[in-house]
Amino acid sequence: MGQDKKISAAVIHRLPRYYRYLGDLLEKGITRISSKELSNRMNITASQIRQDLNNFGGFGQQGYGYNAAYLHDEIGKILGLDRSYHMIVIGSGNLGQALINYANFEKRGFFIRAAFDINPKLVGMSVRGIPIYDLDEMENYVKTHAVDIAILTLPRSQAPDVVKTLCDCGVKGFWNFSHMDLDVPEGVCVENVHLTDSLMTLLYKVNDASHNL
Amino acid sequence: MGQDKKISAAVIHRLPRYYRYLGDLLEKGITRISSKELSNRMNITASQIRQDLNNFGGFGQQGYGYNAAYLHDEIGKILGLDRSYHMIVIGSGNLGQALINYANFEKRGFFIRAAFDINPKLVGMSVRGIPIYDLDEMENYVKTHAVDIAILTLPRSQAPDVVKTLCDCGVKGFWNFSHMDLDVPEGVCVENVHLTDSLMTLLYKVNDASHNL
Repeated sequence: MGQDKKISAAVIHRLPRYYRYLGDLLEKGITRISSKELSNRMNITASQIRQDLNNFGGFGQQGYGYNAAYLHDEIGKILGLDRSYHMIVIGSGNLGQALINYANFEKRGFFIRAAFDINPKLVGMSVRGIPIYDLDEMENYVKTHAVDIAILTLPRSQAPDVVKTLCDCGVKGFWNFSHMDLDVPEGVCVENVHLTDSLMTLLYKVNDASHNL
Repeated sequence: MGQDKKISAAVIHRLPRYYRYLGDLLEKGITRISSKELSNRMNITASQIRQDLNNFGGFGQQGYGYNAAYLHDEIGKILGLDRSYHMIVIGSGNLGQALINYANFEKRGFFIRAAFDINPKLVGMSVRGIPIYDLDEMENYVKTHAVDIAILTLPRSQAPDVVKTLCDCGVKGFWNFSHMDLDVPEGVCVENVHLTDSLMTLLYKVNDASHNL
C-alpha cells in the first residue's frame, strides 16, 4: 500500500467497521453509496467518513459516491486481508477452544495452525482438526513454523514467560485475551480486545509495523 | 454515588484498568502508592491519573499517595461492583458456553442465570449448572426474572429481533458479541467489546444510566 503518513489509532479502529458495513451493502446488492447514505447507516458524520477515507487516497468520485465493491476491496487490502495469516492459540481452555471453533476466521484468511496447553487432559486432543500440544513444545513449534499471531487465552500468571519466549522467537502480533497488559519490545503489536473487529485491527498494525521496519 | 457531572467515556474505559492494577498491588501486599509509581506501572502520566481520579473526588493525600485498598474499593463502587448482577446468555454455542464457563465472573458478582438457543441439541442441556432454554422461552423468562444484562453470542441475523424483544421487556444492558451494531432505544447501554474490562465498563454505564433516570 505504501502509506507514507501515520494513520491515527482512531481511524484504524474504524476501518474494520467500514469493511463490515460495505460487506453488508454488497450482500444486499448495493453497489454504490454516497458518503451521506453511508453516514446515516454507520452513524458517523459524512465529513468524518470523507476525512477517514482521504487518509488512504479517497476512493470517492464527486457526484457518484463510493463504489462499494472497490472500497470494500481497498479497505480489505489496507487491513491486510489480501493475504493469509498463521496463528497459534496459547491456552486451550474454554475460550481458546471457542476461538478455534470459530470457522469464520478461515474465510477471512486467518488460520489457526496449532494450540498449546499445560493441562494433560487437553494435550493430545484436537479441536476441529487443530492439534493441542504441550506448552513445552511451543518454542520449538514457533522456531520451525511461520507464526504471524499468537492468541493468548492462558491464565495471566503464565502470560509473561510465554510472551517473552514468543517475542524472542520473532512473533510480532499478540491477540491478548489474558487479563493483563503485556510488556513487549518495540515493533511488537498487542491488541487487547476481541473477535473479528479487533483481530482485523491487529492485522492492520502488524502490516503497518512491517511496512515501517 | 451521586456523581453530578458527566464523566467522559475515556475515563470510564480506564477505570477497570485502575481497578485491576490496584487489585494487583493489594495481592502483592502494597498498601499505598504515589501517583508517580502508579503512573510508571500503568504507563499513564501521573497528571492523567490525578485528573482521572479527581473526577470522583480525588482519593489522594498530599505527600502520602493513594491508599490502595481504599482506592480499589471506591473505584469498585464507582464501577458498581458492590452489588450483584443477573445475566442471561443468548446464543449458547462455543463462545456462549466459554463465557458461562468463566467462573471468575461470579467472584465479581456477575451471575449468569440462564442461557438460550434455538439449536435442539443444546436446548435442555446445562453448562456448569446453567440451564439452556429454547429461545422461544426467553421473553417469558425475562418478564418473570430480574435480568440486568443480556450477553449476545448469537448469529447477527437473529440479533435485531432478540434485542427488540429484550428492550421491550426492559433489559437495559447488552454485552454484544454479535458482529453488528445494535439499534437500541435511549437509556439502553451497549458494550461492543469483551471480557472483564468491558463488562465492568458496561456495569458502570448501566449504573450511571440508572442514576440519571
